[in-house]
Amino acid sequence: MILKSNELHHGNSNMNPLLEKIRDVVGPNGMLLGDDVSNRSDSWPPVGGCQAMALVRPSTTTEVSRVLEICHQEGQSVVTHGGLTGLVGGAKAGPDELVLSLERMTGIEPVDSVNRTVTVDAGVQLQKVQEAAAETGLLFPLDLGARGSATIGGNISTNAGGNSVIRYGMIRDQLLGIEAVLADGTVISSMKGVIKNNTGYDLKQLFIGSEGTLGIVTRAILRLRPLPRSQNTALVAVESFDKLWRLLQVMDSALGGTLSAFEVMWNDFYQLIVGDGKRHGQPLDSSHAFYVLLEATGGHDEGDKARFESALEESLEGELVVDAVIAQSKQQREDLWAIRDDIEGMVKALFPPIGFDVSLSIPQMDGYVQEVREALNQRWPASRMVVMGHLGDGNIHLVITVGSMDENDIHEVEKIVYEALQQRQGVISAEHGIGLDKRAYLGHSRSAAEIALMRTLKEAMDPRGILNPGKIFTSAAEG
Amino acid sequence: MILKSNELHHGNSNMNPLLEKIRDVVGPNGMLLGDDVSNRSDSWPPVGGCQAMALVRPSTTTEVSRVLEICHQEGQSVVTHGGLTGLVGGAKAGPDELVLSLERMTGIEPVDSVNRTVTVDAGVQLQKVQEAAAETGLLFPLDLGARGSATIGGNISTNAGGNSVIRYGMIRDQLLGIEAVLADGTVISSMKGVIKNNTGYDLKQLFIGSEGTLGIVTRAILRLRPLPRSQNTALVAVESFDKLWRLLQVMDSALGGTLSAFEVMWNDFYQLIVGDGKRHGQPLDSSHAFYVLLEATGGHDEGDKARFESALEESLEGELVVDAVIAQSKQQREDLWAIRDDIEGMVKALFPPIGFDVSLSIPQMDGYVQEVREALNQRWPASRMVVMGHLGDGNIHLVITVGSMDENDIHEVEKIVYEALQQRQGVISAEHGIGLDKRAYLGHSRSAAEIALMRTLKEAMDPRGILNPGKIFTSAAEG
Repeated sequence: MILKSNELHHGNSNMNPLLEKIRDVVGPNGMLLGDDVSNRSDSWPPVGGCQAMALVRPSTTTEVSRVLEICHQEGQSVVTHGGLTGLVGGAKAGPDELVLSLERMTGIEPVDSVNRTVTVDAGVQLQKVQEAAAETGLLFPLDLGARGSATIGGNISTNAGGNSVIRYGMIRDQLLGIEAVLADGTVISSMKGVIKNNTGYDLKQLFIGSEGTLGIVTRAILRLRPLPRSQNTALVAVESFDKLWRLLQVMDSALGGTLSAFEVMWNDFYQLIVGDGKRHGQPLDSSHAFYVLLEATGGHDEGDKARFESALEESLEGELVVDAVIAQSKQQREDLWAIRDDIEGMVKALFPPIGFDVSLSIPQMDGYVQEVREALNQRWPASRMVVMGHLGDGNIHLVITVGSMDENDIHEVEKIVYEALQQRQGVISAEHGIGLDKRAYLGHSRSAAEIALMRTLKEAMDPRGILNPGKIFTSAAEG
Repeated sequence: MILKSNELHHGNSNMNPLLEKIRDVVGPNGMLLGDDVSNRSDSWPPVGGCQAMALVRPSTTTEVSRVLEICHQEGQSVVTHGGLTGLVGGAKAGPDELVLSLERMTGIEPVDSVNRTVTVDAGVQLQKVQEAAAETGLLFPLDLGARGSATIGGNISTNAGGNSVIRYGMIRDQLLGIEAVLADGTVISSMKGVIKNNTGYDLKQLFIGSEGTLGIVTRAILRLRPLPRSQNTALVAVESFDKLWRLLQVMDSALGGTLSAFEVMWNDFYQLIVGDGKRHGQPLDSSHAFYVLLEATGGHDEGDKARFESALEESLEGELVVDAVIAQSKQQREDLWAIRDDIEGMVKALFPPIGFDVSLSIPQMDGYVQEVREALNQRWPASRMVVMGHLGDGNIHLVITVGSMDENDIHEVEKIVYEALQQRQGVISAEHGIGLDKRAYLGHSRSAAEIALMRTLKEAMDPRGILNPGKIFTSAAEG
C-alpha cells in the first residue's frame, strides 16, 4: 500500500538519488514519503507536521548499518525516532533531514530466566518488556507514564528514569549489553549479558543519554530482577521541609533496601487535584505543607508489612509525620498513586503549562522553590506553580502557568527557573535530557570545558556530524 | 630531606630540562628521583624496582593540570599511581616514563549527611572513606580486601567491584561527581553531587574503568547509603550446580533487596583450607559439592532475622540446601567470612598461583570449570585448581597452580582458560581490568570494532598518547 502511494506521488523518476539508494536497502515498505511523513509527528504531544524529507524504517541492524553508511558518505543528517514521548524536542527533524524510525525492530527474545536477562530490539515498547518479564515471574524495573509508547531505544538514548529510580536506578543501571550503529555504519556489538565486564572502555555508556548524537542503538540486553512478593503503600503528611528529608533518611534506613518510592507533593499540588469537587477524594486533610507517597516492595508478605508499619510508627513517634494513611487494598493503593500520577488533572488546572525537571542539593530545595515562586508572582501576579518530585533522587518537577505560551514569556520563566538553579549548582535536566528545547541553557549546568569535551567526542565518533545534529549542543561546523 | 637527596645525586645541572620544569610546578618535595624511585614498586605484590625516570607527587589539581600540560607539550608519557594494589600490571612504568602519584592528594571533606555524599581527593584510601562515612552513621558500600591501600582514584580507574556488588553495584554505581585532568591539562570538573543529571554526555563514565588512559581522576563525589542496622550470615551446603543458581534466585526473591552476599566456594576450595590440621575449623562437613556464604543486611533487627531464617527454611524445604549453619554471634560471622577471605591460605597451598577473574553466563559455568580442569589435568597431571566467586554477579575466580611460573607455562594456562571462555562468550576480566598482563587476550572478549572505537576515543582525548600508553591496548602509534 505504501509502495503504491509512494509511486503515485513520488515516482522513481523524481526521486532524489540518495533516497533511491536507501530504498534499495530497506525496500519500498521501508521508506515513507510525502503525506505519509507530514501526517506524522516528531514530538510530544503528537500533532503531525513532521518536516523530514523521508522516513526510513529499517527492519534489521544490517539495514540500519547500510543506511548510515550511505548517509555518512553523502553527509546526510539523520534523526532517529523511537516512541516520540520525549519532552525536549530531541526528535524534531527539519526538511533536509531524514528520519530513521526503529518501529519495525520490535523483537523480544525469550527471557533468560537463569541469568535473569532479556534481549530486545530497540524499537520495542517499554511496557512489552515489562510484560515479558512478568510472564516469567521477573521484573523489569524501569517504569514511567509513557510506558505504552516509549521504546527501549528511546529510554536508552535519554537515560530514562521514572518511578523506581530510588530502588533500582535509571536505565543505565538496567543495561548489560548494547548493540549500536556508528555514524559511518560500523556495528558496535557489545552484547555480553554479564554484570561485570572490566575489559577496556565500557562503550555502552557512550550511547546512554546521548540522545542519538553518537550512534543508533539497535538492540540491548536488559537486566531483570525478582518480582516483588509484597507491596506496602502509604500517604503521609509532613509539616516542614526539614522533616521531609529526615523522614527520607529514616525510611531508607528502617526499610533497609526495600524503599521503592518516596514521591513528594508540595501542598500546592495536593490542593489542586484533591478534595471536594476535585478529581480525587481526600485521603488526608489538605492543610499540610507536604505529602509523601511512600512505598516498599519486598520478598516476605507478613514480615514486610510489619516492618513497613514499624517504620511508619518510628516516624510518627519522632514527629516527622503528622498524619498517615496506609493502603489496605489494591484499590486503595491505586487511588493513592492516581493522585501522584494525575498529570492530566494538573495540566488542566494549570493551562497552558510550562514544565521543568531539575535536580539540586536537598538542603537547597525549599529555598529554591520559594525564590522561584516569589519571582514568578512578582512578574505575573496571576501565575501559579505546583511542585512535586522524586525527593529520594534529589529531583523535583515544577509546573508553572503564566497564562501565556508566548515565546518571550516562556523565556522569562526559564530565566527565573534556571538562574536560581545555577546559583545553587543545580542541574537543568534531571531526567528529560537537553534536546533542542534546553540547549540554550546547557551552560547553566555544564562548564565550557565539559561542553568542549562533549564536542571532541562527537567529532571523533561522527566526524561529518550527521547524527541528530544540533541536539544537546551545536557542533563545531554549526558554530 | 628528599630535596637534599635529589640534589646530592642529581644536581640541578644534570637534570633533564623537562623534569626541571615539572619540579618548578610541584616543588622539590613533589619530585622523587634515583633510588627514591627505584626502591618503590609499581605493581603488586610490592617488590621495588620501579624503573620510571622520576616520580611526581602533585598536591593539588592545579599542579596535576600543569604537569600534564608540560608532558603533553613534550610528548612525555605519564603513568598514574594510586595504591598499587592492581593485579594486571596497569601501573608498571618503563625507564622513559614519568610516574604521577596521587599520594599527597588525600583530603576528605566533611560528610554531607543530608545529601548523603562525601567529596574526596583521589589519593585517599578506600578504608578512610568507609570510616568517614561510618562516623556519621552512613555506609560507603564499596569493599574489597585491599581496602587499606587501594585509593579511590585507583578504584575509579579500574571500576572496582568487590564484596557487595550484588547489593550496591561497582564503584560506577557509587560515583556522583568527578574531577579529572585530560592529557593536555584541561580540568574537567563534573562535580555535581546529584543522582540524576541528564544534561548531555555523562562524561564521568569515560574515566571509570579506563585505567588511567583517558585522564587522571583527581576528586570525586561519592554516594553514601544508610548504615545497615542488621546483618544475618549463614554458610550453606549445596549438592549440585543447578541447585546453586536456583538457591540464588530464591534468596534474592525472598530477601527482597537485602541480599548482600552470595559467595560460592567450590568443594576444592573448601577442602583446601577447612578441616583437621587446616587453617579453619569445619562448620559444615566437607563432602558437599558447593558451599555458599549468604548474607543479608537490613533495617529491622528482629524482622530481618525472621525473614532470613524463613528464606533459609524455604530453601531447605525445597531441597536446594542440604545443610546450613547460621552465625549466632559476631565472632561466628567473622569465622565464616575468614574462610571465604583466606586468599593467603589458598595461595600458600597452591604455590605458585596463577589467578583468573572471569564472567560468564551462569548456565555455562559448571561445564566451563569442568572443561578447564580436565584440560589442565591432561597437560599437567599434578596441577591443581580451586574455584570460588561472586555467583550473584556472574563472576568466578579460578586459582591454578602447575608448579611453575615459567612464562611459557603461564601462557599455556591462559590459553586453556581463555579459549574455553571465548567459546562461551565469556569475559576475561570481570573486576581486575586489562592493564598490561591481559592485553594480549583483549580480543577474546571484545570485537575488532569495539577495540577500534576504544582507539578512536583514546586518540581524540589523548592525541599524543601520553597517558598510561600501552595499557589495555596498543595505540595506533605503537602499532
